[in-house]
Amino acid sequence: MLRLLTVTVRGFKQHKTPRLKFSTSSVMAKSKFEYVRNFELDDTCLKNCYIVVRLDGRSFHKFSDQHKFIKPNDNRALGLMTRSALSVMEELDDITIAYGQSDEFSFVFKRSSNWFKRRASKLMTHVTSQFSSSYVFYWKEYFGEQPLLYPPSFDGRVVLYPSNQNLRDYLSWRQADCHINNLYNTTFWTLVQKGGLTTTQAESRLNGTQAADKNEILFSEFSINYNDESPMHKKGTYLIWEMVNESSTKKINRPNEAETEVTVTRTRKKVTAHHCDIIGDQFWEEHPDILERD
Amino acid sequence: MLRLLTVTVRGFKQHKTPRLKFSTSSVMAKSKFEYVRNFELDDTCLKNCYIVVRLDGRSFHKFSDQHKFIKPNDNRALGLMTRSALSVMEELDDITIAYGQSDEFSFVFKRSSNWFKRRASKLMTHVTSQFSSSYVFYWKEYFGEQPLLYPPSFDGRVVLYPSNQNLRDYLSWRQADCHINNLYNTTFWTLVQKGGLTTTQAESRLNGTQAADKNEILFSEFSINYNDESPMHKKGTYLIWEMVNESSTKKINRPNEAETEVTVTRTRKKVTAHHCDIIGDQFWEEHPDILERD
Amino acid sequence: MLRLLTVTVRGFKQHKTPRLKFSTSSVMAKSKFEYVRNFELDDTCLKNCYIVVRLDGRSFHKFSDQHKFIKPNDNRALGLMTRSALSVMEELDDITIAYGQSDEFSFVFKRSSNWFKRRASKLMTHVTSQFSSSYVFYWKEYFGEQPLLYPPSFDGRVVLYPSNQNLRDYLSWRQADCHINNLYNTTFWTLVQKGGLTTTQAESRLNGTQAADKNEILFSEFSINYNDESPMHKKGTYLIWEMVNESSTKKINRPNEAETEVTVTRTRKKVTAHHCDIIGDQFWEEHPDILERD
Amino acid sequence: MLRLLTVTVRGFKQHKTPRLKFSTSSVMAKSKFEYVRNFELDDTCLKNCYIVVRLDGRSFHKFSDQHKFIKPNDNRALGLMTRSALSVMEELDDITIAYGQSDEFSFVFKRSSNWFKRRASKLMTHVTSQFSSSYVFYWKEYFGEQPLLYPPSFDGRVVLYPSNQNLRDYLSWRQADCHINNLYNTTFWTLVQKGGLTTTQAESRLNGTQAADKNEILFSEFSINYNDESPMHKKGTYLIWEMVNESSTKKINRPNEAETEVTVTRTRKKVTAHHCDIIGDQFWEEHPDILERD
Repeated sequence: MLRLLTVTVRGFKQHKTPRLKFSTSSVMAKSKFEYVRNFELDDTCLKNCYIVVRLDGRSFHKFSDQHKFIKPNDNRALGLMTRSALSVMEELDDITIAYGQSDEFSFVFKRSSNWFKRRASKLMTHVTSQFSSSYVFYWKEYFGEQPLLYPPSFDGRVVLYPSNQNLRDYLSWRQADCHINNLYNTTFWTLVQKGGLTTTQAESRLNGTQAADKNEILFSEFSINYNDESPMHKKGTYLIWEMVNESSTKKINRPNEAETEVTVTRTRKKVTAHHCDIIGDQFWEEHPDILERD
Repeated sequence: MLRLLTVTVRGFKQHKTPRLKFSTSSVMAKSKFEYVRNFELDDTCLKNCYIVVRLDGRSFHKFSDQHKFIKPNDNRALGLMTRSALSVMEELDDITIAYGQSDEFSFVFKRSSNWFKRRASKLMTHVTSQFSSSYVFYWKEYFGEQPLLYPPSFDGRVVLYPSNQNLRDYLSWRQADCHINNLYNTTFWTLVQKGGLTTTQAESRLNGTQAADKNEILFSEFSINYNDESPMHKKGTYLIWEMVNESSTKKINRPNEAETEVTVTRTRKKVTAHHCDIIGDQFWEEHPDILERD
Repeated sequence: MLRLLTVTVRGFKQHKTPRLKFSTSSVMAKSKFEYVRNFELDDTCLKNCYIVVRLDGRSFHKFSDQHKFIKPNDNRALGLMTRSALSVMEELDDITIAYGQSDEFSFVFKRSSNWFKRRASKLMTHVTSQFSSSYVFYWKEYFGEQPLLYPPSFDGRVVLYPSNQNLRDYLSWRQADCHINNLYNTTFWTLVQKGGLTTTQAESRLNGTQAADKNEILFSEFSINYNDESPMHKKGTYLIWEMVNESSTKKINRPNEAETEVTVTRTRKKVTAHHCDIIGDQFWEEHPDILERD
Repeated sequence: MLRLLTVTVRGFKQHKTPRLKFSTSSVMAKSKFEYVRNFELDDTCLKNCYIVVRLDGRSFHKFSDQHKFIKPNDNRALGLMTRSALSVMEELDDITIAYGQSDEFSFVFKRSSNWFKRRASKLMTHVTSQFSSSYVFYWKEYFGEQPLLYPPSFDGRVVLYPSNQNLRDYLSWRQADCHINNLYNTTFWTLVQKGGLTTTQAESRLNGTQAADKNEILFSEFSINYNDESPMHKKGTYLIWEMVNESSTKKINRPNEAETEVTVTRTRKKVTAHHCDIIGDQFWEEHPDILERD
C-alpha cells in the first residue's frame, strides 16, 4: 500500500523492497479505484434544440451596495458584464447571440452545435468559468482604482428550446423583463434622488402602479420622457457576430518611387454590441443567420 | 408592441397614447413570453449520495507554458489553486472535504446536503464560478508582479457516489493518479534538467518503465530518493474543516487598576490544508466526521 | 413496533395495550418511512417536442418459431400487432399517429401533449402495458385455436423530436427499414420455399446483393414482381385518427303511420389503419393535422 | 424515391429502371434518415444503487368493480397479481425481492445488477410488459370462467436507493401502507357487510379514527380480532429466491435384479411467496443474501 512509503528508508538495500512494493501496489491501486469513473452520468442535450446558458449574479444586491454601484444603472458595471460576455463569445464561437441586462447574461448556442458533444455540464461550467474569471480580470478597465473587494460569483443553468419561436420568445421574455425592471427602477430612484422620498416612501408610492403611471410620474413630476432614456438601460445589450471592415494604413517603399501610403481594408467576423429591440420581427429579418431552419 | 416606443414623441397629448399602449402591451408581452420558463428541466441529484464537483483547468498545458510555470511543479500555481479552493469552501459550508492536484480540484458535498435543493447545475456552476473568479483575484498573492495574461477557465462536472466506500475510492483514485503523474514528471524533468536529455529523449527513456524503474533512475543516476520529495507534490492537497484555537491579546483597563493584558483563546471552525495519505484507513479514522453513516 | 402484533393475545384486558401500541407505532412508522418518496427523480420530457414511444418484441425470433409464424410474413401476427396498437391509441388520444412493422410499433404523442405531465416513465410504461395485455387478450381473434404458449414481452423507450422534419425523418427511417427487411426476407424465403435452397445457401446467395439484385432474383427466377407484393408487407401499417361516417338503420313507429325505416349517418373520430407511403410529401399534405406548427 | 414504386410496371424492359432507381434511393434514404437515432438520450441508472421498479394498476377501482372483486380483499385478484410477479422474477433473475399489495407490485434489482446496462427505460418497460401480459395470460387460472372484459394496464416507475437502510425503509413504507389500508378496508367493509351501514355511513363513522379505534370497533362490535386476519391481507406478499428441495421417485431396472424405486432429491433455486413482516430485523437476518454490502 501507499503507506509503506512513509517508512523512512536509509540505505539502498533496505529500501529496494518497499520501493518495489509501493510501485506495484500503487499502480494496482489506481486500476482498482478506477471503477468510480463509471458513476458519471451522461447529460447530453437533445439534438436540434437551441442551448441557452443563463448566468445570474449571486448576492449581487449586496455586491452592488458594497461596490457603490450607481442607481438605478451603473454603466461601469454594465460595461464589465458586456466585456465578460464578449470574452465568453470569443472563446466559444458556436454562440450566435448573447443577451444581458442587470446582473444576468444569456448565451445561445446554435441548435446544430456539437461543442463538448453537447454535454450540459461542460457547456454551462465553461461559460460560467470564463465569464467569472473575465469579470475579475477586466474589473480595472471599468472601475479604475476602485478596488474589487472579493471574488464575485455567478450561477448558471442550461435550458433547451426546440423551435425558433421558442428561442425568440425566450429572448423577448428577458428583454420585456429588462424593460419592466428598468422603468420601475428609473421611477423609484428618481423619486428618491430628485423627489426627496425615502426608499420606503418610494416603494409605497409605486405599489400597484402600471407602466403608464410610472411614465406619467416621470413626465409630469420630473419632466423626464422615459423614451429618451438610454437604450442600453431600456433594452439591455445583445452581442452578435458581424462582418466588420477594418482599415489600416501601410507605408510602401518601392525602389525609385516615392514612399506611398496605402489604406488596406479587411473584412473580419467580430462580436459587436447593440441595444435595439429584439422582440419585433425587424431584428430577425436583418440578421437571418442567427436562427437555423426549424 | 415595444416597437411603438421608437416613435419620437414631442408633446404630452400626442405621446399619451403610445405610452399607454406600450405599457399595456409590454406587460402583456412579458406574460405572453413567460411560458418559456417551463422548458427548464429538473436536475436534482439523487438523495443520500455524496455529490462531487470536479474542476479541471482548460488548456492548462498552454496556460502553464505562457505563464512560465516551473517544471515539474510550480508551488505558486499549486498555492493559487488551493487558495481558490479555500474560497469555494468558505462560501459553501456543506463541502466537507476538497482534494486537488495539478490543475484539478474536487469538492465533496455531504450526502445529506440540501444546498440549492441539490440541483446539479446550481452546485457545479457556483463552485466553478467562485473558483474561477478567485483564481484571478488571488493571482497577485502568488505570482506577484508577473502578470496574468488572460482570464483562465475551468470546466466542471457532478458525479454522485452512493456509499462511503465509493467516495473513498474516488478520492483514492485521484490521489493515486497524483502519485503516478508526479513520479513520472519528476523523473522526466530530472532527466531533462539534470541529465541533459531533450524532452523527446526523456520521453523515450521512460517509455514502458514501471514505477520501480523510475525510482531507480532517480536514485542511482541522480541520488534522489523520491520518498524525500515534497508531500504536496507526491500527495496533492486536501482541505477539511477543523476546530482551531486562535489566541489574541487584549488590553483591559479598569478604573483604579493597572492596565492588564489578557490572552483570549477562542476555538473556531476553519478550513485547513494537508498533504497526507487519504487512501489508507488512518486518515478516515482520525476524521470520522467527514463520512456519514451508509 | 409491528412485531408486537405477533404476540398471541387472548383476553380483552391483556391485548388492549399491544393493540394500542401497535396502532400508534405503525402510523408513526409509515410517516417515518415516507421520506423514501423523495428519491423519485423527475423525468419530464422537454416541452414542444414530439414524444415517440417505440416498442420492440423481446426474443421474438424464438417466439415466432415456437408459435410457427408463417415466413416471411404472418398476417395473423401482423394483425394482432395492429389490433394491440389500436387498443393503445384508443386509450391515449394524444397519440396522433402510430407506425408498426414486424415486431415493433412506434407511437407519436403530439408535441403539445400534456398527458401524465409529459413524464417519460408514465408514458412509456402505460403504452407498453396496454400493448402487452392487449396482445394476449386479442390473441385468439387472430390465432384461433392455436394456443399462446407463454406471456410475451416488449420493451419500450422514449425519444423526443424537436421539429416536424425530425419526426418525419423518424417515421421515414422506420418505413425504409421495413422495405429493406421485407425485400430481403421475401427473397430469402422464396429461395428457400420455392427455390429449394437451405437457409444457409439462401443467406450466402444474398450476401452482398443490392436491392436491385433481389428484385431481379424474384422476377427472373420466380416471376415475382416485388411491386405486386402486399402493401402491408412492403410499407408496414400506420394508424391515424379519421372522421368516419357510420350509418345505421332505425325503425320508427309513429301513431297512425306505417313503420318507417330511417338511415342515420353519424360522423365520428375513429382510428383507421393504412399501408401507404409516409416518406413522400403526399401523405403529409393529405393529413395536415398530424403535425403541429414548428 | 420510394414513390417511384407506385408506378404500375408491365414489362421487364420498362420496369428495370424504376426498380434500380428505387433500390438505390431507398438504401440511400435509410442512411439519410438514420441520424434520428442520435436523439435517443441515455438514461443509465447510477451504479451501486438498488433499482426499484414499482407498478400500479391503472383505473383499478373501476376495473375491480367491473370484475366484481370481493371486498375488502379478493384472493383471486391477489393470487393473480402474485402469479404475474412470479413470471417477472423468473424472467429477470437480478430481482432479489418483490413486494406486492392491493394493485401494486415493487421489484428490487440488486445494486450491482447490470441488466440492460442499467437503462431505466428498458428495466421498467420490460417489467411492466411481462407483468401485464402475464396478468391476462393467467387470468383463467384464478378467475375460471368469469371472463376478463378488456385488457388492463399498469404504469411503472423507477426509483433508486443508495443504501441498505433506504431500501429497507422503502419496503417498510409499502408494508406499513398495506397495514393501514387493510385495517381501514376491513373495518369499513365489516361495518357495511355485517353492520348494515351504507358506504357513506361507514365512511363517516371511520372519519378521524385511529388504528386503535378501528381495532376496537372490529373487536367489540363484531368480535373480530384483527390480529387473526389473514397474513396475506395484513402484510401483503413478498417473493424471494430460495433453495428448495424437490423429490421425485424413479424406477430403476437392472439386469438380474428386481425393479427398485429410488427417491431422488434435488436442490434448486426457486421463487417462493411469503406474508411475514419485513419491517423488523428478523426477516433481514434470516435472509442475508438480499442486501449487498453498503
